[in-house]
Amino acid sequence: MSDRAPLAPPRFPDLPDISGLVLASGHCGIRTPGRRDLLIASLPNAASAAVRLTRSRTASPAVLWCKRIRRRRQARALVVNSGNANAFTGQPGRAAVRATAEAVADAVGCRVHEVYVASTGVIGEPLPLPQILDAIPAIASGAGDAGWEAAAEAIMTTDTFPKGAGAETRIDGRTVRIGGIAKGSGMIAPDMGTMLAFVFTDADLPGSVLDGLLGPLTDRTFNSITVDSDTSTSDTCALFATRRMPVETPVESADDPRLDAFRGALEVVMADLARQIVRDGEGATKLVTVTVRDAARPAHARAVALSIANSPLVKTAVAGEDANWGRIVMAVGKAGVPVNAERVGISIGGIPVAHGGSVVAGYDEAPVARHMQGPEISLEVSLGAGTEQATVWTCDLTHGYIAINADYRS
Amino acid sequence: MSDRAPLAPPRFPDLPDISGLVLASGHCGIRTPGRRDLLIASLPNAASAAVRLTRSRTASPAVLWCKRIRRRRQARALVVNSGNANAFTGQPGRAAVRATAEAVADAVGCRVHEVYVASTGVIGEPLPLPQILDAIPAIASGAGDAGWEAAAEAIMTTDTFPKGAGAETRIDGRTVRIGGIAKGSGMIAPDMGTMLAFVFTDADLPGSVLDGLLGPLTDRTFNSITVDSDTSTSDTCALFATRRMPVETPVESADDPRLDAFRGALEVVMADLARQIVRDGEGATKLVTVTVRDAARPAHARAVALSIANSPLVKTAVAGEDANWGRIVMAVGKAGVPVNAERVGISIGGIPVAHGGSVVAGYDEAPVARHMQGPEISLEVSLGAGTEQATVWTCDLTHGYIAINADYRS
Repeated sequence: MSDRAPLAPPRFPDLPDISGLVLASGHCGIRTPGRRDLLIASLPNAASAAVRLTRSRTASPAVLWCKRIRRRRQARALVVNSGNANAFTGQPGRAAVRATAEAVADAVGCRVHEVYVASTGVIGEPLPLPQILDAIPAIASGAGDAGWEAAAEAIMTTDTFPKGAGAETRIDGRTVRIGGIAKGSGMIAPDMGTMLAFVFTDADLPGSVLDGLLGPLTDRTFNSITVDSDTSTSDTCALFATRRMPVETPVESADDPRLDAFRGALEVVMADLARQIVRDGEGATKLVTVTVRDAARPAHARAVALSIANSPLVKTAVAGEDANWGRIVMAVGKAGVPVNAERVGISIGGIPVAHGGSVVAGYDEAPVARHMQGPEISLEVSLGAGTEQATVWTCDLTHGYIAINADYRS
Repeated sequence: MSDRAPLAPPRFPDLPDISGLVLASGHCGIRTPGRRDLLIASLPNAASAAVRLTRSRTASPAVLWCKRIRRRRQARALVVNSGNANAFTGQPGRAAVRATAEAVADAVGCRVHEVYVASTGVIGEPLPLPQILDAIPAIASGAGDAGWEAAAEAIMTTDTFPKGAGAETRIDGRTVRIGGIAKGSGMIAPDMGTMLAFVFTDADLPGSVLDGLLGPLTDRTFNSITVDSDTSTSDTCALFATRRMPVETPVESADDPRLDAFRGALEVVMADLARQIVRDGEGATKLVTVTVRDAARPAHARAVALSIANSPLVKTAVAGEDANWGRIVMAVGKAGVPVNAERVGISIGGIPVAHGGSVVAGYDEAPVARHMQGPEISLEVSLGAGTEQATVWTCDLTHGYIAINADYRS
């Protein structure tokens, strides 16, 4: 494993126990000896489930499997391997997913359609299925390592640190817990693709409500980060609820006001995990928050924010600590949404740089340059066209990115 | 000026004289002393004209000027400065364009609306208008340097070599000539944005025909190259015809079969200029040709080709001479067009790598790895969905790109 990324948090957080969830992870032999590469999360009393999947048209068989079973909104287990993405592997790849799900179903005693599957790692190589099938019974029966941090490590590929986040909140006056793990980041060398995020709660919420919560929150968190604009074949974000903390009357809608605190806590957890992925972006030395305000539509704000966050020239300027706001102008212009340049304003680190389509009078670059030297950079654009806004997180584009992705042959 | 790019052609080509075109260039003082930064192309007998402009929503005042005058389809002069893009400069920027056009109109004796204007260089800084206005009369009256190579040098920013291409062909049995210059490449550090291309011919073609030719050919050439996916505020591609070689009966349509040879020659010139821009891409060490075949629609082929050509992971793999075809799978999947992964085939340097959704039987990486070591890389994808195709050119993504864009403060 590489050294921890410079933007890594100091340590793995303390996460709450989720009643009704058993995490077990271990080594099945895909990765180097001793490196965890298999996670089985068991949900003995059946959990409700919702999942968001990559929009890639070359999605992996595991993604297609989850897409098929998610309609039932029920889960008894989740199995994840790292080191091999089982993507672009044809019919043998599809058979391998089914065999994996069957082995886990046998081990935990459930139906095959209650087993969610995810794989992350090299694209195009056959999955070493026998090793996975051999390892499943022991890990599922408790021989693996328990706990959040081991689970987060088992799903890592080239991540430099395990990613976890948790919260406690209340529904109907009763304490409920949320815990999640994730791995990143963008497509990762060599082909260690995929963003995976798995969030668990003991709240008493049916799958339809989980689904209603997960969609908008995924858009605001995991779908609002970008490392290099590349989309993996395997991105998966799943939310499971063990329902061990019953509510008095059922929650039937994601808009139920009793969920306000829960929704907020869930967003905090998901946004925390998402930003950890960016912090571990290949070669990242700066975390960049791009906020676009005063847009006519939310989609316009988002398109402009992503255009800025994906621009190699903006990202190299950040790497060079260069307050190069002309590149932000360029990225606003190329976003493909209506923009009145004469109303565009730009601030960096909260300091106005341009206003009404040209540089502010008496612009002093010095305080902006000081902001650019810090580890967390804020780029703010006002479109002057409405009241909508969007925030996207990214990292800088450095020699480290090139070194990771070009200097070593896979 | 930096050293010539490793992919640069050995020398500037011999270009034909275009009857009715006078090229004059010189130093007006925007750039370092002695460095040409102003080009005036005079067309004494009025030329027909067509122009394609950036789709950026933060387009420069010069682009907006050309957009306004192009309806007349007539030109008497073209003036181009390098070193300052006059972009995001508000009302003073618009006034500067008009003043420049007026000065050239005075100098060559034409109406202001017959003067095309382009600027390339830093975004957001006021144009040093007095220097430009001072220099125009002398350069326009012949005091500047004549000829193609000097003209190509005058429009350069961080380009490492001047770019020119020419051809002779026939319309109605009569020889006509085509000559063009261009500068690149992508958005260039520091903010030296913009792709500019100016092509001249002595053929007797009205503006409507030029326009009909320019659109599709621009899409197949200048709009089919990408260095870093960033779009400048100033991209301009103009075609001028001095009409000194009259045809017997007027050409009234771009589809006139008498233009078949001319259209072919014009595409060769434009594609040559476009590829020279890629060869001078920041940090480029390899020219990459991406061809997508067997698509259901041309737009699908183009979207997939651009997705591959813009992918940082594909481009870093090429830089690393890594036959990392899983990244091509990823880029096909993220292109946002319908793809049946089970029908996708991939070849590299003409060597089949994947077929029908998985790696070819007995895949031997050795010959592919040898191809990846060369300076010109060919990536080919078949979508297995139809008969349409598209070709896009790009370069690799190297430490050189980061060094140029991040290591030095502007």
